[in-house]
Amino acid sequence: MSGNTPASPWDELPVRDELRGKSPYGAPQLDVPVRLNTNENPYPLPEPLVERIAERVREAARGLNRYPDRDAVELRTRLAEYLTKTSGHPLGLENVWAANGSNEVLQQLLQTFGGPGRTAIGFEPSYSMHSLIARGTGTGWISGPRNEDFTIDVAAAEQAIAAHRPDVVFITSPNNPTGTAVPPETVLALYEAAQAAKPSMVVVDEAYIEFSHGDSLLPLLDGRPHLVVSRTMSKAFGAAGLRLGYLAAHPAVVDAVQLVRLPYHLSAVTQATALAALEHTDTLLGYVEELKSERDRLVAELRALGYEVTESDANFVQFGRFADAHEVWREILDRGVLVRDNGVPGWLRVTAGTPQENDAFLDAVRDLKKEQSA
Amino acid sequence: MSGNTPASPWDELPVRDELRGKSPYGAPQLDVPVRLNTNENPYPLPEPLVERIAERVREAARGLNRYPDRDAVELRTRLAEYLTKTSGHPLGLENVWAANGSNEVLQQLLQTFGGPGRTAIGFEPSYSMHSLIARGTGTGWISGPRNEDFTIDVAAAEQAIAAHRPDVVFITSPNNPTGTAVPPETVLALYEAAQAAKPSMVVVDEAYIEFSHGDSLLPLLDGRPHLVVSRTMSKAFGAAGLRLGYLAAHPAVVDAVQLVRLPYHLSAVTQATALAALEHTDTLLGYVEELKSERDRLVAELRALGYEVTESDANFVQFGRFADAHEVWREILDRGVLVRDNGVPGWLRVTAGTPQENDAFLDAVRDLKKEQSA
Repeated sequence: MSGNTPASPWDELPVRDELRGKSPYGAPQLDVPVRLNTNENPYPLPEPLVERIAERVREAARGLNRYPDRDAVELRTRLAEYLTKTSGHPLGLENVWAANGSNEVLQQLLQTFGGPGRTAIGFEPSYSMHSLIARGTGTGWISGPRNEDFTIDVAAAEQAIAAHRPDVVFITSPNNPTGTAVPPETVLALYEAAQAAKPSMVVVDEAYIEFSHGDSLLPLLDGRPHLVVSRTMSKAFGAAGLRLGYLAAHPAVVDAVQLVRLPYHLSAVTQATALAALEHTDTLLGYVEELKSERDRLVAELRALGYEVTESDANFVQFGRFADAHEVWREILDRGVLVRDNGVPGWLRVTAGTPQENDAFLDAVRDLKKEQSA
Repeated sequence: MSGNTPASPWDELPVRDELRGKSPYGAPQLDVPVRLNTNENPYPLPEPLVERIAERVREAARGLNRYPDRDAVELRTRLAEYLTKTSGHPLGLENVWAANGSNEVLQQLLQTFGGPGRTAIGFEPSYSMHSLIARGTGTGWISGPRNEDFTIDVAAAEQAIAAHRPDVVFITSPNNPTGTAVPPETVLALYEAAQAAKPSMVVVDEAYIEFSHGDSLLPLLDGRPHLVVSRTMSKAFGAAGLRLGYLAAHPAVVDAVQLVRLPYHLSAVTQATALAALEHTDTLLGYVEELKSERDRLVAELRALGYEVTESDANFVQFGRFADAHEVWREILDRGVLVRDNGVPGWLRVTAGTPQENDAFLDAVRDLKKEQSA
């Protein structure tokens, strides 16, 4: 029987061709004093919320032998209330769907509206999981253009949509890794172009919207059943460890993704923890205000140091330009601060941390500047 | 703009053709005194474990602003220890992968080894999520045969594998919904057939293995890099609400699924809860022994009542035969007991519950027999 063991099992494994030679997605996890590389919220949850989570999970654990609420009704109701309250746009349970991180939400959308024989477009550089989830779901990927300043080139985007007739259009606002907010007029123009071309679904990824100077695009959902807004509790709610993403859309979209969602996908402990966090929304949004002002400080100080900085509406800042961004990334790392090299030539991204963490980062780049001019 | 709203948005949504007209998977969730329909463990977690979960989750919640351990190293190490201890087959961290329920494990396997242009085979009736996850991942589905007594017809299965050359072969042992265990010789024969045909991956779904009269097939992993065993904490660990599935395989398989896993797919609260449950393995496996003897009692009493009963190695029993199984399902429901109609013509499935729940079920079918003979 052991004659079946190939000498090098990895080479012999019948993995799909398009996966061969690829590496798993993920930032390097390095042990560094100041980690400003994955856009995490630097503020731990307040202790009363930690206690509330323990309490709610204890209650859920008493019924853990039973499957969780498959439709997550209470959680989706509370998420709809949060969206209604913060956007002024009325949404209910029937408009909201939740999953294990916005990645799973996006995967379900691509399984439903993309998949084999279909395509999706994104305007790059953008959140690289969009193209990776497309690959994972067998959806063809089209890389759309951006302007030099990382805003979306509306005419070029309309042209790309008309030419490629994609089934799904991704718009990330604020965009990751650039921080760029997308104005509603752009979304409307792209939605119209997408409807004229196919019609196709338009997915607005608002993972960082709570940090924006502007408003959410949720009100655009009105009368547009092919528009979807995706969200996450990872950033503004300071709960990256929770893996809770959600979407808002026409109820028909919520019905449709249930054809591909794995049954009971959202555990009872995840639902309990998310419900606890939603009880503390006001406190958590207070931290968001602090992070916004720290983000604005980073932009201002980096510019004062002579760096080029992309306008940011997120909890991170893209700065440059560098002849060799990866070399600068390493030099900042040598100074004890981990930022992110997203592979955008000439640019790096730094997450807005606590004031102390941001000071450490600014000290590091100041030191770097000094050395370079020495 | 509202001119874009179709009269019936659901009909107008550009969902994939193969999803049109389908219904989401899931047993009816009815409010009935005795629910023996989804193979849940009827015993709530013991209170010391509930407290330990609250404690571990409180600790995890203090770091919830950070992403979880992407590789779930501690959890996979403990799962490997559990498998080693219960099967006698030594396994380590590098052999084990975990995800949100065995459904997500199976989805990752199909994304890696199945997908568009590829096929998977299962021997039906079996766990219907295998074909549904195949559909969701764009993998073609081949329905393989079984004998009249629901064992796998080895010659026919070998022939089907040789004819269709599937990329993935599913073997469910014990099988759901029939309860049938698959002997190691059958798995070996099908593995050989699958290697000769392609080679393809063979996935043994052992969701119910802890309830079996026989042993796990884990020792077969030795020298077979294309064999995968999937497991869950939903049944034997009494944690259906936790959604924790895992697999054991050659380390190359564990590496390969990381190319399609969503990054940080397993939340910090899920990892913390699963780790707590693994600390209480001995207590939980004690409940499994009680359920096994209740399962055996159900088989014996149903046979004594004149029903045909399929041999069961799981925590449920398939019984029949009925001219109209769904009508019998309804009549049992009228008597306050919810069992499962899995759509296998002539048969129903009942989960082994507490002794009191099983008595209620047996009273209901006894009453039904009496009425029929009156």
